[in-house]
Amino acid sequence: MSYFSDLPKVVYEGPTSDNPFAFKFYNPDEMVGGKTMKEHLRFGVAYWHTFTEDLSDPFGAGTAIRPWNHLSGLDLAKARVEGAFEFFEKLGVPFFCFHDVDIAPEGETLRESNENLDVIVGMIKDYMKHSDTKLLWNTVNNFSHPRFVHGAASSNSADVFAYAAAKVKKGLEVGKELGAENYVFWGGREGYETLLNTDMKLELDNLGRFFHMAVDYAKEIGFDAQFLIEPKPKEPTSHQYDFDVASGYAFLQHYGLQDRFKFNIEANHATLAGHTFEHELHYARIHGMLGSVDANQGHPLLGWDTDEFPSDLYATTLAMYEILQNGGLGRGGLNFDAKVRRGSFQKDDLLIAHILGMDSFAAGLKVAQKLIDDRALERVVEDRYASFSEGIGKDIVEGRADFRALEEHALGLKEIGNRSGRLEQIKSTINQYLLRTFAGE
Amino acid sequence: MSYFSDLPKVVYEGPTSDNPFAFKFYNPDEMVGGKTMKEHLRFGVAYWHTFTEDLSDPFGAGTAIRPWNHLSGLDLAKARVEGAFEFFEKLGVPFFCFHDVDIAPEGETLRESNENLDVIVGMIKDYMKHSDTKLLWNTVNNFSHPRFVHGAASSNSADVFAYAAAKVKKGLEVGKELGAENYVFWGGREGYETLLNTDMKLELDNLGRFFHMAVDYAKEIGFDAQFLIEPKPKEPTSHQYDFDVASGYAFLQHYGLQDRFKFNIEANHATLAGHTFEHELHYARIHGMLGSVDANQGHPLLGWDTDEFPSDLYATTLAMYEILQNGGLGRGGLNFDAKVRRGSFQKDDLLIAHILGMDSFAAGLKVAQKLIDDRALERVVEDRYASFSEGIGKDIVEGRADFRALEEHALGLKEIGNRSGRLEQIKSTINQYLLRTFAGE
Amino acid sequence: MSYFSDLPKVVYEGPTSDNPFAFKFYNPDEMVGGKTMKEHLRFGVAYWHTFTEDLSDPFGAGTAIRPWNHLSGLDLAKARVEGAFEFFEKLGVPFFCFHDVDIAPEGETLRESNENLDVIVGMIKDYMKHSDTKLLWNTVNNFSHPRFVHGAASSNSADVFAYAAAKVKKGLEVGKELGAENYVFWGGREGYETLLNTDMKLELDNLGRFFHMAVDYAKEIGFDAQFLIEPKPKEPTSHQYDFDVASGYAFLQHYGLQDRFKFNIEANHATLAGHTFEHELHYARIHGMLGSVDANQGHPLLGWDTDEFPSDLYATTLAMYEILQNGGLGRGGLNFDAKVRRGSFQKDDLLIAHILGMDSFAAGLKVAQKLIDDRALERVVEDRYASFSEGIGKDIVEGRADFRALEEHALGLKEIGNRSGRLEQIKSTINQYLLRTFAGE
Amino acid sequence: MSYFSDLPKVVYEGPTSDNPFAFKFYNPDEMVGGKTMKEHLRFGVAYWHTFTEDLSDPFGAGTAIRPWNHLSGLDLAKARVEGAFEFFEKLGVPFFCFHDVDIAPEGETLRESNENLDVIVGMIKDYMKHSDTKLLWNTVNNFSHPRFVHGAASSNSADVFAYAAAKVKKGLEVGKELGAENYVFWGGREGYETLLNTDMKLELDNLGRFFHMAVDYAKEIGFDAQFLIEPKPKEPTSHQYDFDVASGYAFLQHYGLQDRFKFNIEANHATLAGHTFEHELHYARIHGMLGSVDANQGHPLLGWDTDEFPSDLYATTLAMYEILQNGGLGRGGLNFDAKVRRGSFQKDDLLIAHILGMDSFAAGLKVAQKLIDDRALERVVEDRYASFSEGIGKDIVEGRADFRALEEHALGLKEIGNRSGRLEQIKSTINQYLLRTFAGE
Ligand SMILES: [Co+2]
Ligand SMILES: [Co+2]
Ligand SMILES: [Co+2]
Ligand SMILES: [Co+2]
Ligand SMILES: [Co+2]
Ligand SMILES: [Co+2]
Ligand SMILES: [Co+2]
Ligand SMILES: [Co+2]
Repeated sequence: MSYFSDLPKVVYEGPTSDNPFAFKFYNPDEMVGGKTMKEHLRFGVAYWHTFTEDLSDPFGAGTAIRPWNHLSGLDLAKARVEGAFEFFEKLGVPFFCFHDVDIAPEGETLRESNENLDVIVGMIKDYMKHSDTKLLWNTVNNFSHPRFVHGAASSNSADVFAYAAAKVKKGLEVGKELGAENYVFWGGREGYETLLNTDMKLELDNLGRFFHMAVDYAKEIGFDAQFLIEPKPKEPTSHQYDFDVASGYAFLQHYGLQDRFKFNIEANHATLAGHTFEHELHYARIHGMLGSVDANQGHPLLGWDTDEFPSDLYATTLAMYEILQNGGLGRGGLNFDAKVRRGSFQKDDLLIAHILGMDSFAAGLKVAQKLIDDRALERVVEDRYASFSEGIGKDIVEGRADFRALEEHALGLKEIGNRSGRLEQIKSTINQYLLRTFAGE
Repeated sequence: MSYFSDLPKVVYEGPTSDNPFAFKFYNPDEMVGGKTMKEHLRFGVAYWHTFTEDLSDPFGAGTAIRPWNHLSGLDLAKARVEGAFEFFEKLGVPFFCFHDVDIAPEGETLRESNENLDVIVGMIKDYMKHSDTKLLWNTVNNFSHPRFVHGAASSNSADVFAYAAAKVKKGLEVGKELGAENYVFWGGREGYETLLNTDMKLELDNLGRFFHMAVDYAKEIGFDAQFLIEPKPKEPTSHQYDFDVASGYAFLQHYGLQDRFKFNIEANHATLAGHTFEHELHYARIHGMLGSVDANQGHPLLGWDTDEFPSDLYATTLAMYEILQNGGLGRGGLNFDAKVRRGSFQKDDLLIAHILGMDSFAAGLKVAQKLIDDRALERVVEDRYASFSEGIGKDIVEGRADFRALEEHALGLKEIGNRSGRLEQIKSTINQYLLRTFAGE
Repeated sequence: MSYFSDLPKVVYEGPTSDNPFAFKFYNPDEMVGGKTMKEHLRFGVAYWHTFTEDLSDPFGAGTAIRPWNHLSGLDLAKARVEGAFEFFEKLGVPFFCFHDVDIAPEGETLRESNENLDVIVGMIKDYMKHSDTKLLWNTVNNFSHPRFVHGAASSNSADVFAYAAAKVKKGLEVGKELGAENYVFWGGREGYETLLNTDMKLELDNLGRFFHMAVDYAKEIGFDAQFLIEPKPKEPTSHQYDFDVASGYAFLQHYGLQDRFKFNIEANHATLAGHTFEHELHYARIHGMLGSVDANQGHPLLGWDTDEFPSDLYATTLAMYEILQNGGLGRGGLNFDAKVRRGSFQKDDLLIAHILGMDSFAAGLKVAQKLIDDRALERVVEDRYASFSEGIGKDIVEGRADFRALEEHALGLKEIGNRSGRLEQIKSTINQYLLRTFAGE
Repeated sequence: MSYFSDLPKVVYEGPTSDNPFAFKFYNPDEMVGGKTMKEHLRFGVAYWHTFTEDLSDPFGAGTAIRPWNHLSGLDLAKARVEGAFEFFEKLGVPFFCFHDVDIAPEGETLRESNENLDVIVGMIKDYMKHSDTKLLWNTVNNFSHPRFVHGAASSNSADVFAYAAAKVKKGLEVGKELGAENYVFWGGREGYETLLNTDMKLELDNLGRFFHMAVDYAKEIGFDAQFLIEPKPKEPTSHQYDFDVASGYAFLQHYGLQDRFKFNIEANHATLAGHTFEHELHYARIHGMLGSVDANQGHPLLGWDTDEFPSDLYATTLAMYEILQNGGLGRGGLNFDAKVRRGSFQKDDLLIAHILGMDSFAAGLKVAQKLIDDRALERVVEDRYASFSEGIGKDIVEGRADFRALEEHALGLKEIGNRSGRLEQIKSTINQYLLRTFAGE
């Protein structure tokens, strides 16, 4: 059967196209800074938002009109696989991502759930043989079922911890089976509702134990995917343990896990935590911890995770700037953890929304590359910090200065010559690059 | 004397210029939709942020290096006037705005303050004779002096109310003397710190009385400026009475003032109130209450009024879209109620920052005009609401429907055919317009 | 059948009780300021949160264990009615509230939905004959069904407008049938996702027309309930038209509806809008617009509507202070628009949570009454504003002052004697009242 | 001379006192849980907010009426020392805290500043001989002077780094001289305005180097105070490096500093970072990093650091609960980093505000101790996590479980029995404790 055959294959038509089903900026084979756009932009489709999301919200029922709405159980799961690979092909995306429960229905028992998974994983594996789309990462959903009401690895129930472990064990096996590049841990309910009934120390220790067990099991079965923690500050719980990259990094260091994990950074989670998207990318990058990206955006005036498709060209430019400075994302990618708005309930909105996201990142890539080619920002930074390349600055950086030497230096200073940080001029530059990058075409 | 002679006159050099002191997008005589950019963009320089701001913040002293830092009192005030008109000329801005205390020092007594004002107002009047820059609006600062600690027109002290009235009386006279197009009321401390010691009803009633007296006095002296309320939700007080445009409109209607006032809408105040800038502009516009604009922007992750120079092209585009739909701002303008960052403390940063703001609005104007020329958004809206142009929809709009008729219609409906709101597609369109508008040059 | 027979009847046992199923502070027949607690505290149970809520959230399935989970359709609806009246009796609450879809399942057609409603309304009417619990208000849910995806009275579809009207028509009839004291309008999707596809003027005009039709129809059928608008700033839409009380009041005045409507103020909606709960109550009260209260609370660090049971004694004290100053809520009441946390999924949590809410408001009532009895805050206010009772202050208040007279007064002032607002002392007082009110028992 | 002689010595009069200058809850010698209140509550007065703060804000001049307002320079500094020790004695506080610039004026040169410091430090040392008030901690202000516009240890200028180092060197010497229990680092401008001109890696590395140098120098001079980092997420910079405790802990571990530092946790900084006060205390406590507390509170609806005197009894109760669980604060204390509101400008407001803070913590202490005595919360927690004391749970905790064993356990589970988290019941308990603790007196 076919689910998206009525939708066109998306091709690049350029910035002036008014075809909603064409790329305006994403031109897969175009060279940017020595690599093709396709190589730079390792886009992934999120199975959950694209194929299982019904567009319900806390105040209303699902609105999504999907071609498989009449199906259920394994039939529904199979239809979605078929539709998914059609969709990947329409878009020409190199990757997809999923949670276990996205692809296969949970059974009455864990055993039955695993059997359902085996059926669908087999089917996906077959489809992958004839597809260019690979698995960026998989994970397991240890937060939606009522059994995880008080957390999974941080649950107060040892049975739930065991159940969660069994699910991750299966997830690692599935990842290996399908050749996943990464394996993601988002701590959906690893946090608390109220401190007053919570043993945070035990919960964090258990979380540390859980991750060590995951590392051990992956090694045991020879699954060499990059492990990624995806921070989020709150929602669904009032407070989540992996609040942001820095919190996660504190945790990883405390439990001796920092060499085995990196971060999967979501834009909307960054802003919910009070950081810009680029801050989280940058912080992770300079600590060697930038693994992958959940490419979406939040609404700056809304206090919950809206998971919008990325459209803000400032954000995509600065994100791509960080990624380029990182030498790319390695085995990571740009997964659209993004959903169409509840009012965009038609099937073709799925395609349109992904085009928006892909075009926005493609445009951002080109602007970022041009900034780098011209060293527009790098020159600013080099110039600002020049004092650390010589004299007392060099002594500081190279470990030859102590408080006595520095005091002596300070006492000898006539005046301290700060210069403007030039924030406004830099913003002008960014705007010029944004408005001019596509001017020549 | 000369204060800015070392800075160049700013001219348009186009999008590819890398001269920090040139306009890249603001080309005053360029025609856009039948008017010159200069006619569209009635820019104003804010006297306070540009000539009196020292760039202190709650955690640090002023950093601003200004050529008059060695002066004080009336000498300082006169130097600033001289510098101001030099600055206006460098930038080629048509307007400026001020509070009484920005231009002249307060004296020991009200009488002395007024005398100081008279001196400087006379000087400004002289300068205006030989300048193209006019007074967009003036106002009085009824919030900084300790006497206004508990408010001005909403103070608990009748003496303070009287003092505030005397200052506004003088402000109206000054506005008339200098030919101000508008007169602005920003209720800096018209609000409360805690409800527990506050008689809000008396305070609001007094505020209503105060505005009526202002209206009466302006009429009496023949000062025909447009009166404007500038809403802000909080800061400095915990809660300000003119929280947003809607609150202000409720107030104006309640006290029968809605025909005499419009709104001066500040972008940063809008976002602090939980609204987008364009929301406030739009709401005011459709109620016939859009008067003028304080053109700045906030930082989406900071909870205070940062008053940044506008640089976000999405915001300037959507603002100009509203202004164009409004047929322009009439006697209002785009006042840069914006300050350079504390780290941008050099004199030339003032010029650079205004260039950023002017270029950002110029670019926004062109993108907005192109959207309008192509009816890119209007077609979407017309199409979406077509059902109100015929049948039962027309009956509703024209007042011929009641609940009985509507129920009958509803009972007869087979199905209700909603269509996608196409938010993602519209965002794609905006990005295309943004990236393409300057492509042809 | 019986659904709550295993739960005890809740009785007052006093502050030292450690029985989770006893009231510690709510003592229905205790006299407070000349009325019984029961008369003061017109508590209502929200049908939706108590009887239909399944405790799902955007990241997880429902967890609620309810005795009717095995039922569906009208059987389920009937079981809930039976359980509801048992529950009301256990708690001894005087009121309940519902949306149409809470009590009866929607049918395939509007006609069928109405028939379902008729069955259940009849059943409820029968139960009410033998119950002390009355209908505080009813409303219709014009936001959950996909047909309302783009709004109801502010939809872009005239058919949807008609459908919404038909539902409210039925709602008014149901309200009349069951003797509702009030009828509530919460504009669940009356707002917008993006301004870019929205005709806000038409939507607001239609909303005004809709309310006028509702007023007319209620008059026609002789339903004399108080009409209430419930403001909320956002969620589910990005921006809701009834943002807060002031916005709602602007709207009502603009469309000439201010005499027919009051406000139903929800604590959590107040804080989401950037106001304290007491601010919204106070603002409504002094404008004569305080109608009823949705008694819940938000989480100050979470950006969505958490609808928690009220527990903060500062908030309940200040709310009751406003309500006492208002001479009570008239036909309004204190409806617990509150839900147990997803982790509080047991049946008895429903009872415990209502006890928490009732005790919190009962304690707040007593503290507030004591504050009033002692004129603890009123003396502060009277003293602070004394200057408006004589001299120039009296002239201002009585309309005898103009700007000339006030200037003359101001010029004659030697110094302006402000006094401390004493915020810290007032907070000490509040704490003393809080900690001491129950000391004597 | 005398500055506070007209204010009374504050003594305990009990909960029913209406003397604004008496303690209602803080009874220094009262035994609580085996220690006196005075031993539990190591209160500190913040020199800056109490003796140098003028109550200006970004929109207005200082309002504070202080008895030394006519003085300047070293005379002013000396007057404040004299007043400070009077004030400490009136309140009976055991500690105070200061920045270098609070106590002595900066000179033209670093040398002169140090000389000024020497004069005042000598004077303070003399006063301390006859006073019961000790130095809880000192620090240096490396953020207010324009030279620190781009940071101190994270400045882009090596000269500024050196100057900052020289100031901390002197600060450590002063701390040793005055017997400070702790030394605090608050990174006022250690952060950034925009990432675009920032070399975050160099700045963080330099910060790490700076702290190591401080550790080394303290060791060298034999100053054994506890070193404390005070996190704050933003303000004055857009983003501060020590965002919260977790970020700070990540930093300390990364640079190998975790054994030499603990945290000074400020309530208002916690909430600005999106955490509750108790969260930050708890997180620090279970990582062995809870050092000291800045006892204030923020306004939940305002987005900046309001530094209010603590009055919220929920917050003080939960803070004292953490502190009691920590076995006290060791060498740390409860420093009132709090200022009177701008409207509370009278001298006696300083006393009243401290009484508010001390009473609020004293009440919180008693409620917390009672919760602990009754094991009211501990029983809840023990019971909830019981499954980790036996069987598979014990295996997990003791490191005997791996994913294979856990899967086997999970496959064998019949059902997973979660129980309610009882959040509402716990909140009822807290309210009962709050309202009843002072009932018996
Ligand atoms: Co994500
Ligand atoms: Co998300
Ligand atoms: Co403004
Ligand atoms: Co502003
Ligand atoms: Co409600
Ligand atoms: Co709500
Ligand atoms: Co502090
Ligand atoms: Co603070």
